[in-house]
Amino acid sequence: MRNRATRHFEEELEHLKERLLVMAGAAEEQVRVAVQSLVDRDDAMAEQVLTGDDPINQLHLEIDERCFQLLALHQPVATDLRMVVSGVKINSDLERIGDFAVNIAEATLGYVEHPAVKPLIDIPRMAGIAQGMLRDALNAFVRQDMTLAQDVLDRDDSLDKLKDQVFRELLGFMLANPAVTEQALDLILISRHLERIGDHATNIAEEAIFIVSGLDVRHHGREGGTPHDA
Amino acid sequence: MRNRATRHFEEELEHLKERLLVMAGAAEEQVRVAVQSLVDRDDAMAEQVLTGDDPINQLHLEIDERCFQLLALHQPVATDLRMVVSGVKINSDLERIGDFAVNIAEATLGYVEHPAVKPLIDIPRMAGIAQGMLRDALNAFVRQDMTLAQDVLDRDDSLDKLKDQVFRELLGFMLANPAVTEQALDLILISRHLERIGDHATNIAEEAIFIVSGLDVRHHGREGGTPHDA
Repeated sequence: MRNRATRHFEEELEHLKERLLVMAGAAEEQVRVAVQSLVDRDDAMAEQVLTGDDPINQLHLEIDERCFQLLALHQPVATDLRMVVSGVKINSDLERIGDFAVNIAEATLGYVEHPAVKPLIDIPRMAGIAQGMLRDALNAFVRQDMTLAQDVLDRDDSLDKLKDQVFRELLGFMLANPAVTEQALDLILISRHLERIGDHATNIAEEAIFIVSGLDVRHHGREGGTPHDA
Repeated sequence: MRNRATRHFEEELEHLKERLLVMAGAAEEQVRVAVQSLVDRDDAMAEQVLTGDDPINQLHLEIDERCFQLLALHQPVATDLRMVVSGVKINSDLERIGDFAVNIAEATLGYVEHPAVKPLIDIPRMAGIAQGMLRDALNAFVRQDMTLAQDVLDRDDSLDKLKDQVFRELLGFMLANPAVTEQALDLILISRHLERIGDHATNIAEEAIFIVSGLDVRHHGREGGTPHDA
């Protein structure tokens, strides 16, 4: 009986991980399409991102309920419990990432109404980094791969640097030519959304490290410094 | 034995709520001080917010562990389980609000290096609304007061409107006088941080409603619309 319950729990836990991977894939795709719509100045594509948030919201509710049922029916302890509690948190991070993709698409809809400020280089680069961080953070969680999780944490700095670079460059454009102020503001906000997607991927990687090592890497080395620019 | 365990669980749950209230109070105070430092152009006060984040981060770790222990030792079910799982989520929301206070203080440190753009009216107003939402959301959760929780949800719109108003006004300032671009950008970002604090207070209020009514008010009426501008 116990073995059967254990097996059932393990199956349910595997299923939870699969659903989190599905949700992460959907969120990553939303980010990709949102930034592609910006690069292509394609407002129909941006609109697609707005409706594309619904399935992610549905997954959010489903996974939340799945975690709750796992806790209620199986009352896991130790590492199993940590996995499920992390599932709850990661689910929130992924839902938030979906929201950022929508925020990017909305800013894009404003952006394409004006002439372009400049060719976009750093923002697509930021999107690529953020998508990679998200993908790898989830894989690190599912496979309990600490090396990969640490690698995600290491990439967050490059995203912060690019965000600062985008800001300085666009501020220069605005000062030189106030006519581009609105467009430049849209791009600054988009770069911040991408940076925050990286922050959420970082949260997920930190959860992965915590589960495997019991080591809480949150709030270390940040004292007096910059927390997630959330 | 069972009664004793139940009593012990209830005591622990009360203690969890108390700690969440302490953390919410600390986060609210950080927001208050950050915006006060902006209004007073007081960089020493802004610096104080940066160090003031440490106790909140410590509470974040402590409460997370407290929730984990409650789940591991008492294996609660039904409403008790929902309370603890909500505790995990609310803890994350509060930690994030603390980060936003730091972000506001950081923007303030940039802001005070330049002459003021304009007298600040809407931003202190936004701060007052966000602080009230945070306080009431926590009270709604602790007291299981659905009316108060619903009231928090209703206030989120006014924050969004003020954010848009701040944006339009400052954009006007920038276009009229590019010399204020940097300062105006700081204020735009600060207003967005405040709006996001309201979003997290909304999350907390939604959790409170969910616990009491079992009604999941997340992701309703937002389809195709604007998710939390997260």
